[in-house]
This record gives sequence, C-alpha cells and structure tokens, in this order.
Amino acid sequence: MKFCTHCGHPLVLKTPPGDHLPRYVCEHCGAIHYENPRVVVGCVAEWQHKVLLCRRAIEPRAGLWTLPAGFLENDETVEQGARRESREEALAEVEILAPLALVNVPHVHQVHLMFRARLAQGRHGVGAESLETSLFDEASIPWPEIAFPSVRYTLECFFADRRREKFEFHITTWSKPLSA
Amino acid sequence: MKFCTHCGHPLVLKTPPGDHLPRYVCEHCGAIHYENPRVVVGCVAEWQHKVLLCRRAIEPRAGLWTLPAGFLENDETVEQGARRESREEALAEVEILAPLALVNVPHVHQVHLMFRARLAQGRHGVGAESLETSLFDEASIPWPEIAFPSVRYTLECFFADRRREKFEFHITTWSKPLSA
Repeated sequence: MKFCTHCGHPLVLKTPPGDHLPRYVCEHCGAIHYENPRVVVGCVAEWQHKVLLCRRAIEPRAGLWTLPAGFLENDETVEQGARRESREEALAEVEILAPLALVNVPHVHQVHLMFRARLAQGRHGVGAESLETSLFDEASIPWPEIAFPSVRYTLECFFADRRREKFEFHITTWSKPLSA
Repeated sequence: MKFCTHCGHPLVLKTPPGDHLPRYVCEHCGAIHYENPRVVVGCVAEWQHKVLLCRRAIEPRAGLWTLPAGFLENDETVEQGARRESREEALAEVEILAPLALVNVPHVHQVHLMFRARLAQGRHGVGAESLETSLFDEASIPWPEIAFPSVRYTLECFFADRRREKFEFHITTWSKPLSA
C-alpha cells in the first residue's frame, strides 16, 4: 500500500494518535487506511453419506482437493457466501445446516468459517476454478492430496462428529509452519 | 476508492474477466482492489454471575452500553482480538471460553463474532473508548440503552443458555432496518 485511495498522494506508515498499531496514513487528506483479515466461507456438503470435494484448477495448491470455499463478499451473509462458493466451484446447490468449524489463519490474515450442508439431489459439476468435482465416502477421502490444513481439520471434525452422532462447532488455529 | 494504492493512478469500476462482481481496477498497473467484510470480535465476560458492559465514549451510539468488542486486526486470532478489545475498552483480562454468537451485519459489511469469557478477579476499568464500565446481573441489564442489536442478541443468547445450563453457538443476521 503506497498511495492514498481517496486522493492519490503517497502514504506514510505511522501510528495515529490514540491508536496502538502503525497504519498507512495520508498526510495530504488525513485518511487512515486500515487493513483487516478476510473471511473465507465454505461447506462440507453431504449427500447419501458422501461429501463433495473439488480438485483445484488454480494456485495455491492447484491439483489438490478442497472443499468449496472462497472469500466472503460485501453485502452477503456467511451462509450466502458459502452457498455462492458451492455454486461457483462445484455447480452445486446446497442447504446450509449449521456452523462446523472456524480456523484462524493469522499468518495470511484470514479466518476460515466452514458449515455443514446438504447437497441438493447429489448434483455437482466442474466450476471455473475446479479441475474435477467428486463425492467421497469417509474411507475414500484422498487425505494426502487435501489442499489446506483448514480443509483437513474441517473434514476430520465432520467425520468424528458424525460417528458419535453429535455435531458441534469447532475452533482452532492453523499456525505458520516452522519451515516457512 | 478512487486511486490505485500500488501506483496512484485513477481507478475504474468494472468486472474483471472471469469475475462476477464489479471491482476497482487500475488500468495503469492492472491491480484489482477487492473490498471484503470486516470481522468484529468481542465477548461476554462473566464474574460472579454478572457480565461486563462498557458505556461508549465514541460514535456510533455514544452514551449507550455495549460488550467489549472491535475490529479484528491482521496477525491475530479471533480469540486474541476479543482479549485485546477487553483490555483496551474495559482494562479487563479475560479468559476466552467458547464461541457464543455470530451475527451477520451485511449492510455495513461486517461479521460480529462474540465469545463467552471469564473475567479475571472481577477487575475492570474505563478504557479510552469508554465512559464507564460496570458489572450487571441479568435483572439489571439496561436493555433500552444497549448500543447495537448484535449486542442485545448476544446477551439474550448468553442468559437463555445459562438458564438452561447448556451453551451453544448461535448464528443470526441483523438486517438493515426498513426505516434506514
């Protein structure tokens, strides 16, 4: 962030009076530009005891499997966002049932919020950001080819809850790997 | 949003190829500037069956009562954000126990996420954005002077769950009032 979005003048990084963190501040028009984490919304969509996964066509992690998920947009609720992403990535209509997992991903400034959902009529197809979509039962989940730790965690919560027939809302933090 | 934060040139509003919504695009450097909802994190901090509220010193809703809460910052988890806001607004150390309520506020591009928490030693004080802080039992909550519908909803969930001795995670949407 180098230039003010309001007036186009250069920004400086400094802590505004009364604030506790450095912000990008425009000394020309006085605007303060805050940067905040973004929310990723998605779902585990179930149909006849199987769940819907998408093989990613885009980076990061192209070629690996993920849940339908993406950035929450302005003017929509988290449930609407999860439905939209299922439609975009897997041409799937889903009914959102309940929140399933929240994963903090602070090192990339994200919060992932995943729902349990019901896939309408088992229908799905390959959206623009997917190479392939498929329904998997628990035994056939391609665990070594799961794209992200937050997707792995969400699937683990889902199957563990389903086995004990009691769904809860789970929360965890995906910390930056030591090797990164 | 009028100028590119990367190069300072004017932005145009258009739908990028493969996208589904208009975005602010820089035709000089090619940057696409996405705008996404922000997360507000806070908590119901309990001590000896009372909960901590803050009377707001700042707009919006100055003079009314709220839970300690504010915008999630980059590089922190939702739990860390809720703890930080309790410290800033009510000089309170809290132990986060569990997620309590999520409130979509799409008309202002926000998601409010509230936790149950334990207030350490019942200690609190007046932070920079508060006029007053106080502990209230359920019967003395100043319901007509609660600042926001999301705070009211969170408190209602908290007391209802506490009465039946079973805490859950609640989710709702605060829709734009028809009069607005």
